[in-house]
Amino acid sequence: MSKNLTKRNEDFSKWYNEVVAKADLAEHSDVRGSMVIKPYGFAIWENIKEVLDKKFKETGHVNAYFPLLIPKSYLSKEADHVEGFAKECAVVTHYRLMNDPNGGGVVVDPSAKLEEEYIIRPTSETIIWASYRKWIQSYRDLPILINQWANVMRWEMKTKLFIRTSEFLWQEGHTAHATKMEAIAEAEQMHDVYADFAKDYLAIPMIKGVKSDSERFAGATETYTIEAMMQDGKALQAGTSHFLGQSFAKAFDVKFADKDGTEEFVWATSWGVSTRLMGALIMAHSDDDGLVLPPKLAPYQSVIIPLFQKDEAVNDKLMAEAESLAKRLRAVGIRVQVDKDDQKRPGFKFAEYEMKGYPTRIVIGPRDLENGTLEVARRDIKDKISVQNTEIETVIEKLMVEIQANIYNKALEFKTENTSEVKTFDEFKKVLKSKPGFIIANWDGTPETEAKIKEETKATIRCIPLENSAADGPCVYSGKEGKYKVVFAKAY
Amino acid sequence: MSKNLTKRNEDFSKWYNEVVAKADLAEHSDVRGSMVIKPYGFAIWENIKEVLDKKFKETGHVNAYFPLLIPKSYLSKEADHVEGFAKECAVVTHYRLMNDPNGGGVVVDPSAKLEEEYIIRPTSETIIWASYRKWIQSYRDLPILINQWANVMRWEMKTKLFIRTSEFLWQEGHTAHATKMEAIAEAEQMHDVYADFAKDYLAIPMIKGVKSDSERFAGATETYTIEAMMQDGKALQAGTSHFLGQSFAKAFDVKFADKDGTEEFVWATSWGVSTRLMGALIMAHSDDDGLVLPPKLAPYQSVIIPLFQKDEAVNDKLMAEAESLAKRLRAVGIRVQVDKDDQKRPGFKFAEYEMKGYPTRIVIGPRDLENGTLEVARRDIKDKISVQNTEIETVIEKLMVEIQANIYNKALEFKTENTSEVKTFDEFKKVLKSKPGFIIANWDGTPETEAKIKEETKATIRCIPLENSAADGPCVYSGKEGKYKVVFAKAY
Repeated sequence: MSKNLTKRNEDFSKWYNEVVAKADLAEHSDVRGSMVIKPYGFAIWENIKEVLDKKFKETGHVNAYFPLLIPKSYLSKEADHVEGFAKECAVVTHYRLMNDPNGGGVVVDPSAKLEEEYIIRPTSETIIWASYRKWIQSYRDLPILINQWANVMRWEMKTKLFIRTSEFLWQEGHTAHATKMEAIAEAEQMHDVYADFAKDYLAIPMIKGVKSDSERFAGATETYTIEAMMQDGKALQAGTSHFLGQSFAKAFDVKFADKDGTEEFVWATSWGVSTRLMGALIMAHSDDDGLVLPPKLAPYQSVIIPLFQKDEAVNDKLMAEAESLAKRLRAVGIRVQVDKDDQKRPGFKFAEYEMKGYPTRIVIGPRDLENGTLEVARRDIKDKISVQNTEIETVIEKLMVEIQANIYNKALEFKTENTSEVKTFDEFKKVLKSKPGFIIANWDGTPETEAKIKEETKATIRCIPLENSAADGPCVYSGKEGKYKVVFAKAY
Repeated sequence: MSKNLTKRNEDFSKWYNEVVAKADLAEHSDVRGSMVIKPYGFAIWENIKEVLDKKFKETGHVNAYFPLLIPKSYLSKEADHVEGFAKECAVVTHYRLMNDPNGGGVVVDPSAKLEEEYIIRPTSETIIWASYRKWIQSYRDLPILINQWANVMRWEMKTKLFIRTSEFLWQEGHTAHATKMEAIAEAEQMHDVYADFAKDYLAIPMIKGVKSDSERFAGATETYTIEAMMQDGKALQAGTSHFLGQSFAKAFDVKFADKDGTEEFVWATSWGVSTRLMGALIMAHSDDDGLVLPPKLAPYQSVIIPLFQKDEAVNDKLMAEAESLAKRLRAVGIRVQVDKDDQKRPGFKFAEYEMKGYPTRIVIGPRDLENGTLEVARRDIKDKISVQNTEIETVIEKLMVEIQANIYNKALEFKTENTSEVKTFDEFKKVLKSKPGFIIANWDGTPETEAKIKEETKATIRCIPLENSAADGPCVYSGKEGKYKVVFAKAY
């Protein structure tokens, strides 16, 4: 099976598409730009959701649900927002179909035209702030700390499974606060939640920073971002948290009366991560044999494969032992599967579970039964060891921790190796060609320079890092005084 | 607070709307027919989801995600289905907005017209079976046991929060099988899962049965239903499970090769419950003081209210004890909240928690501190008892079981009391007028009789029950030979 996979260094994009298909994660649908998330892919997303949802609740948030459709006029209320989001979106214009009078199936009923069109939410700031307007009168109604798990839609012409699709799944937090400071603290808190989640669960080291003016979310005052490096050296924006100032409160006229009765506009944040994280997970860790999953998010952390023989009596014993092992491992909280298939060859099975990124594999044959041993293979470094049957719980538990750490460390090393600091634009271009990755350079802080660099190299400012962003020399492009030291990269 | 609630026997519909609003469960949005599910309402839905999701997984199902949009032509593929679902739905005709050349915000870009319109899924059989066609070749690919949690949309002109809205949330299971028997067993299994969930968690007794030809799901061979009785005597269809035969397999040309190589069409089921269950929950149990929630689904099962005094030192002690009680209760798995508000009067608070259906309330005052006592009130029967502080865990744990059982038994009694068996149509009409509820009567099995009864009384056949449906006399309407004894009722 692994033989059929394109190598990463041959064609990274082709390799990615093949991993997504062969690991049974997702596929394109007949609906333009929309994907089907298959059960194995969705199980990973469910694990991501479960962890994040818990973190959101621990930080005081509650879930709710707002309408899928947004009245067209809502988009025009916030000037920047409409520029950023109103353009490529699905527009609902009618509410009824009818039988084709000419007998050609069903057609749109022209008499069922909506007075005002709706768009399918590309993000929900507008519809949510229309509700907050009704909910907020006094400082006692604040803060509002709401999150929503939902599908959203942004019409995309060029799609890539998980990374860029017209419809995708995400969560969007929308909070309302009485003070600017509290709103900024909230945006920063969620930025931390995302970065910690990425490190501890996705096993991906992130650069934390803020977006430049031109890369900021439409309607935001500040956009906090986490940026990951993929194995082709390109950056992937994995999550953003926005301090929205009072822009949406002003657009939707949401004021609150303070303790002394004075009216003020409400301060806002929004923050989100999406099924894009699945793409990040795949491109950060997987290899030429397929998916590599961090144990904390793997649907199954291990699979037990009995080596079936011709002798049915032996097979019964192997199956009984496999089931007993599964029970013991489940008792210590390991998600484990037993492979009962007696048709496929072991080698084929091994390749299949490697393709799907099972962190470990436990093989048991007739000799193992006699000797009280088991063969344990780990996916990340392709190592095989023989262990005592009696110690399997300890071995697997320890491997879960080791593999999780190893995957992270490998990604961290890769990121460090592929991050270069440059002082001149020649160097900038040379590095970008020879060794794609993150480029750290001084920037004069102007959108003009940013645009020029993008035009000439396709690299964009991924972020102004939270740490070590003080300029230590002139701008790498303009030669003018440096304002920040920032991270450039080509990006997904 | 409770004083402001309309009484159930004055205007049941008004009472319902007020409970939904005052218990902070949901509200209408500016989007026609779409609701906002507020955090407290959504927390109940999350509990419902969690239990059901676990039950689905225990019965071998996995989750996945399919596109929101469905190509219009898909609907025409299954003849009955298009009749049932293609009509009132949201139609996406364009994929771009543009700035109004006349400066009036944004308008639909006429050049971005879709070649084929999409509709927002009213249910997903068609889009899912288009995928199954790609996934199924051989009997080895079967069964497919997939569930999806999703939003769906059916354009509704007359809406009622949770009961009938244009957009709603639900789960839809879609399974594919090699044999007819296996598919029927699956549909029946999920019918049982729904009925058991309703009994054990919603605390609502259901009548289990199958739908008559005219009430069946569009495209199904058999529709299994669970029907609940609301406190106004009307029936509410709470969940359905469909044996779909081979209709969708034929419509989407999904065949599999059997062991001997012969090709056959695949057998199908689908099954779903929605946020409608929230409406059932409210209308089955709540009273003139507000929401009554079964403890198993209540977001909070208890609230601890310290009776704050003027003396700050006493208040500190009360708060410390309240927090300590909360900790002890959480340790035994009780979901409990501490009310720290020192502004509102206790009486106001009591009414508020009653309105929101908290199953129990624990009140602690200065005298309780001295005596080592607590006052515990239960929501369902409005009883108050004084208990020993040391025994609070045992008391609340026991009350959870008692309240859950009592709410169920009360609903069961109500259903029994309001179910009448009649032999003549005069009796039928008389009962329907004097004592709304379920009417059991013989039916000749014809759609004509069913239609006539509906026309004359607005009562419909809710189901042909799984038990005791053998006719024991002539049809209550036509006087012809009875075929089944069925359940009639006016319904939501």
